[in-house]
Amino acid sequence: MISQTAEYALRAIVFLADHEGESHTSERISATTKVPVGYLSKILQGLVRAGLVNSQRGPYGGFTLAVSSEKLTVYDVVQAVDPIHRIHGCPLEISGHGVNLCPLHRLLDNVVASVERSFRKVTIHSLLLDREGGSHPLCEFPRQELADNAPAVRRPKPGAS
Amino acid sequence: MISQTAEYALRAIVFLADHEGESHTSERISATTKVPVGYLSKILQGLVRAGLVNSQRGPYGGFTLAVSSEKLTVYDVVQAVDPIHRIHGCPLEISGHGVNLCPLHRLLDNVVASVERSFRKVTIHSLLLDREGGSHPLCEFPRQELADNAPAVRRPKPGAS
Repeated sequence: MISQTAEYALRAIVFLADHEGESHTSERISATTKVPVGYLSKILQGLVRAGLVNSQRGPYGGFTLAVSSEKLTVYDVVQAVDPIHRIHGCPLEISGHGVNLCPLHRLLDNVVASVERSFRKVTIHSLLLDREGGSHPLCEFPRQELADNAPAVRRPKPGAS
Repeated sequence: MISQTAEYALRAIVFLADHEGESHTSERISATTKVPVGYLSKILQGLVRAGLVNSQRGPYGGFTLAVSSEKLTVYDVVQAVDPIHRIHGCPLEISGHGVNLCPLHRLLDNVVASVERSFRKVTIHSLLLDREGGSHPLCEFPRQELADNAPAVRRPKPGAS
């Protein structure tokens, strides 16, 4: 339903949004998001191509968010790596149908449209706001508790990309 | 979003529901649904295993619907071939999260749950009911018009499976 690629991309983006302004290597992102590093590298390349993430080479290089997490939506991330496709015309190319979808494809398109609306409404920033009793993405503890007890780890590595 | 396998399975089921009581070979179903016959055969095997379709070998063999289309839902078909998976626990297996999903995975599960609800509500039979100005699944013409002008084609072939 939601592809593994899209879910992994969201984990990576949430990580970068949670560390906005910091640069992190793919190894570091992989360690926290639990996305295999090879798979993650391909996803990060897609996010860089789409302009959502910046990549900086060199000893202090790594990945940073290229867009404010308050403006970036879940939809933007999904579309960058594994786009949601609406059904605009008959997939069987039946000429008599054209854009007048049959009930089967109308249903499927309505469902896709509904998912699209849900994803457009949610910013990445909103996913980081801790709610009472809620857990924080990718972390054992609420972010604040983590920040109070341990300094943020920043481990740029040579040749990170 | 909705996998090709699921969409193809729905085409095949809609075809069989539209020809309820008739037996059709995979070649015939492929010709109308425009699903490549090799791919379709695998999907039909899955539908047979799930008990939604009957397969009969021999010179008058072929596939028939095993369940009334009025009781069969879109959800049943999708689950038979490419199941929708809800997110019941933290996919990162963060022990502190458990079933208390973070906002990212709560959002994704809510979206999946909403798709599941939509698919559970719709029977295959309801997809065949022609609405004013609407097109009929897999057909150039409304089914009634088709029935008036041309007899239903039944072409069982030897060794159909």
